[in-house]
Amino acid sequence: QRERDEFPTLKDFRGLQFKSKDSTIYMNFRFRMQNRLGAYTVDGDNLGIREFDARVRRLRMRVDGYLYSPKFSYTIQLAYTRSDQDFDDTGVANIVRDAVVFYNFTPNFYVAFGLNKLPGNRQRVNSSGQLQFADRSIVNAAMNIDRDFGIKAYYKNNIGTAVYHLKAAITTGEGRVANNTDKGLAYTGRAEILPLGAFTKDGDYSEGDLMREETPKLSMGGGLSKNFETTRSGGQIGYYLYAPVDLTTYFADAIFKYSGWAYQFEYIKRTVDNALTYNDEGDVKYAFNGQGINQQVSYLFKNNYEIAGRYSWLEPGESIQSFQQETEIVELGVTKYLHEHRIKLQLNANYQTKQGVFALDNKGNRWGGVFQVELGI
Amino acid sequence: QRERDEFPTLKDFRGLQFKSKDSTIYMNFRFRMQNRLGAYTVDGDNLGIREFDARVRRLRMRVDGYLYSPKFSYTIQLAYTRSDQDFDDTGVANIVRDAVVFYNFTPNFYVAFGLNKLPGNRQRVNSSGQLQFADRSIVNAAMNIDRDFGIKAYYKNNIGTAVYHLKAAITTGEGRVANNTDKGLAYTGRAEILPLGAFTKDGDYSEGDLMREETPKLSMGGGLSKNFETTRSGGQIGYYLYAPVDLTTYFADAIFKYSGWAYQFEYIKRTVDNALTYNDEGDVKYAFNGQGINQQVSYLFKNNYEIAGRYSWLEPGESIQSFQQETEIVELGVTKYLHEHRIKLQLNANYQTKQGVFALDNKGNRWGGVFQVELGI
Amino acid sequence: QRERDEFPTLKDFRGLQFKSKDSTIYMNFRFRMQNRLGAYTVDGDNLGIREFDARVRRLRMRVDGYLYSPKFSYTIQLAYTRSDQDFDDTGVANIVRDAVVFYNFTPNFYVAFGLNKLPGNRQRVNSSGQLQFADRSIVNAAMNIDRDFGIKAYYKNNIGTAVYHLKAAITTGEGRVANNTDKGLAYTGRAEILPLGAFTKDGDYSEGDLMREETPKLSMGGGLSKNFETTRSGGQIGYYLYAPVDLTTYFADAIFKYSGWAYQFEYIKRTVDNALTYNDEGDVKYAFNGQGINQQVSYLFKNNYEIAGRYSWLEPGESIQSFQQETEIVELGVTKYLHEHRIKLQLNANYQTKQGVFALDNKGNRWGGVFQVELGI
Repeated sequence: QRERDEFPTLKDFRGLQFKSKDSTIYMNFRFRMQNRLGAYTVDGDNLGIREFDARVRRLRMRVDGYLYSPKFSYTIQLAYTRSDQDFDDTGVANIVRDAVVFYNFTPNFYVAFGLNKLPGNRQRVNSSGQLQFADRSIVNAAMNIDRDFGIKAYYKNNIGTAVYHLKAAITTGEGRVANNTDKGLAYTGRAEILPLGAFTKDGDYSEGDLMREETPKLSMGGGLSKNFETTRSGGQIGYYLYAPVDLTTYFADAIFKYSGWAYQFEYIKRTVDNALTYNDEGDVKYAFNGQGINQQVSYLFKNNYEIAGRYSWLEPGESIQSFQQETEIVELGVTKYLHEHRIKLQLNANYQTKQGVFALDNKGNRWGGVFQVELGI
Repeated sequence: QRERDEFPTLKDFRGLQFKSKDSTIYMNFRFRMQNRLGAYTVDGDNLGIREFDARVRRLRMRVDGYLYSPKFSYTIQLAYTRSDQDFDDTGVANIVRDAVVFYNFTPNFYVAFGLNKLPGNRQRVNSSGQLQFADRSIVNAAMNIDRDFGIKAYYKNNIGTAVYHLKAAITTGEGRVANNTDKGLAYTGRAEILPLGAFTKDGDYSEGDLMREETPKLSMGGGLSKNFETTRSGGQIGYYLYAPVDLTTYFADAIFKYSGWAYQFEYIKRTVDNALTYNDEGDVKYAFNGQGINQQVSYLFKNNYEIAGRYSWLEPGESIQSFQQETEIVELGVTKYLHEHRIKLQLNANYQTKQGVFALDNKGNRWGGVFQVELGI
Repeated sequence: QRERDEFPTLKDFRGLQFKSKDSTIYMNFRFRMQNRLGAYTVDGDNLGIREFDARVRRLRMRVDGYLYSPKFSYTIQLAYTRSDQDFDDTGVANIVRDAVVFYNFTPNFYVAFGLNKLPGNRQRVNSSGQLQFADRSIVNAAMNIDRDFGIKAYYKNNIGTAVYHLKAAITTGEGRVANNTDKGLAYTGRAEILPLGAFTKDGDYSEGDLMREETPKLSMGGGLSKNFETTRSGGQIGYYLYAPVDLTTYFADAIFKYSGWAYQFEYIKRTVDNALTYNDEGDVKYAFNGQGINQQVSYLFKNNYEIAGRYSWLEPGESIQSFQQETEIVELGVTKYLHEHRIKLQLNANYQTKQGVFALDNKGNRWGGVFQVELGI
């Protein structure tokens, strides 16, 4: 089993494995480092550098396995870098990303209790170590439902060769930082169907067709999440609002792979009741609402160079259009996979436009580029 | 040796052990996760939910062992969750819980230098992984002396079949967060006697009679700690006061186990010189003083279900009675030990009263419940 | 290879090593703990204690090794204590100290990408686990260039028996805390020559002659670093200034070892354009500039006791002499190496003077002492 961040990797362990002599303790240790050098231009027709994005983007340690019986599995993941800790939004160094225990009733039905990713949009559930661009899309950034503490249930089965997954969660709705929460919880459901059968090595949650599927493979998914009385601008993530709001997020996505080609599609829409919140001085803080589409297509050459293209479109809802503009990004990526997704070199270039105007002199347009090295086990 | 947080577990190692080829490095790795879902009612007769307590309560990594010679042993423990870091009181993410080196003159006499638990009240010195309720008592919460940096000495010996322990410490008195300190240090001493001999597998520092002692076992202990010129409301813990105070804490406790039954008792009393501190605007911050008793009784069934009852009483001192009320809690706990204290499911329900009035409509009374899963090695 | 913090220790691994069955993953795990008890007097002729320095000074975990091919090596180092995280200057718990990947073109030429130490003054590049006093000198504290994110290149070669090293770096200039940076980067270069050949086990980056060199060994080095538009008082470290400044730092150093004797010398000079920065209220924050010299001499006895002396002199630049005074420190150290630098007991005593006046009654003069235990693998 490959990495997807909802689950521990119980089969086909990667990394370093430790087992106690009596086999009651099984632990798999991994780490992942992403070092990045990026730059953004001043605007579309002034190619001077406005800002560098140069840092250890991610440095994570992950331990998963089972204890005393394969029925009790667990995943722990720690994040050590500032931007991986929601620090700038919350003021708290949230080191813990995953801390969850699974009870496996059967190989096809298990329940989780703890902190891990919600079954939201596909690109978010994808591990950041399985991406083909250095970052996820702006659509994901604006509307994903991230991680949350609570109870989750997972079920999968077959109909002939087709595979389907059902996932549901009841969680606090306030994300990683919360110690306690009000009565307003979050409710999430998601279904997936793989009409052409399972992907090789869980490739439905890994970008790019690194397995070079010999027959076409397709996964289609969709779901929704309702988050009641959340105090944060993105529900589980984002800055604190002046008043609680109710969010509803809808997502539909698909991934197709065949013979080195991969195509993925993602649509997310979010509605918010009373998205604008005010304090006593009349200052405003808003919860993002709107909709967006992300599409990516890629081909992996025999030498393990991949070329990928991406087009993302994000439209803010009417109530917040005085704060946010419609944004599009066109991006080109070249990735050299030295050891699948574990060691890779990524070079991305993109052009971002505002208000649907692609002209270089349009206000807010800009060029960007990033070089990223990923190293992990 | 079982876990008690003053010591490394040099014998009967649990967890994953690593040894260098030349046997000069010996390291034992463990982790522990506690995931919790709790709720409190609005008050005693309105059973609506006021607040959920839903989170990764603890996530810790622990490394202990010896280096180059069993005479040099060490314990390191790291805490990754917000509520385990004293963050909300200090603004600092105090990741380090234990970082201490021991020099073992003899197996019965050793000296510690570094950060670890003070030899205070028994329930506090108990590891949080050895508790039979999800939380320690309110008496412990209000007056325990926690961890501190300094020098500690431990001595144990026998008188016939009886065993006794003597422990002493000189420490900074400001707890885990301190980088440096004023002249006012903390001085702690504690003695214990086990008239019926040692508990099976160090059970005097583990709650519940999981070993089902075949003969009665008893430990009685007591001690005191003087903390001079501390700047924090609880000495080593708590928020910062406006002025330093001197604290004295007295503790007496006992634990008895036999044939699946366990009973424990704990009395703590704290006095503070000038407990109320003021800033220039006349705002007040106070150091807790008062006294309290905690008692727990439990029986472990053959199927490793345990039923436990607890009664705690906490009375604030006269000088702070305008800020804090007398509080009592009656609590019932059912615990399923799947692998002793390492994997357990805990379900607790409690009723909290104020001012000694048990009537449901008394102001401040409330019901609470918590379900907790503990998973560790 | 011994530890120097620019590099992973690929040869002569210490610590615990893990290797995957197929030898594609090689990982070396180490940790290091420094516990300290220090005290400073009120002044030169009042030996009352003004302040204790009692804490876990450092607690670090380090993982290094290579992945899939010895050409891809890496170093990760995490710091868990408050004072090791730049917390008090930045408000951020900077846990990551090193996170860097190396591409080894040849054994003599390699390039690093990520966060690690800059090739600055020798005492700083020295690991804190290879020092003979509990702290580095005041000269280093005031003007070292610490760690920074970016690209670094390292080359070494021989001329006959002489060895030389060339090192260069382009980095963000804002240190560990930075997520992104302006156009002003930092440029660093350094050269070293070892005319008498390589030290035993990389002893040129380890203090004290623990290897008891059988023939005299000498390393001389020098370099400079220009840091443009940095926002911090020390470039990569220090508090935030009110306006960006340009720093230039020059360093020259040498170390000599022979038969248990070691002598080291370090000169650092820093110039700053417009060192004083102001906010709108006219408050001032300044970037340190000035110069200083540190010298240390030591002898290691046969029983692995070392006696060491140190003299440090630090002179602030003219523009900041209303804020900082000329400072000298004379220090004596006795160290017992129980297992080389891995387990050692250190006892240091020092006398600090201000304005070049050694009289006990001079304002600002004081005595200090520290006892430190280091334990690591």
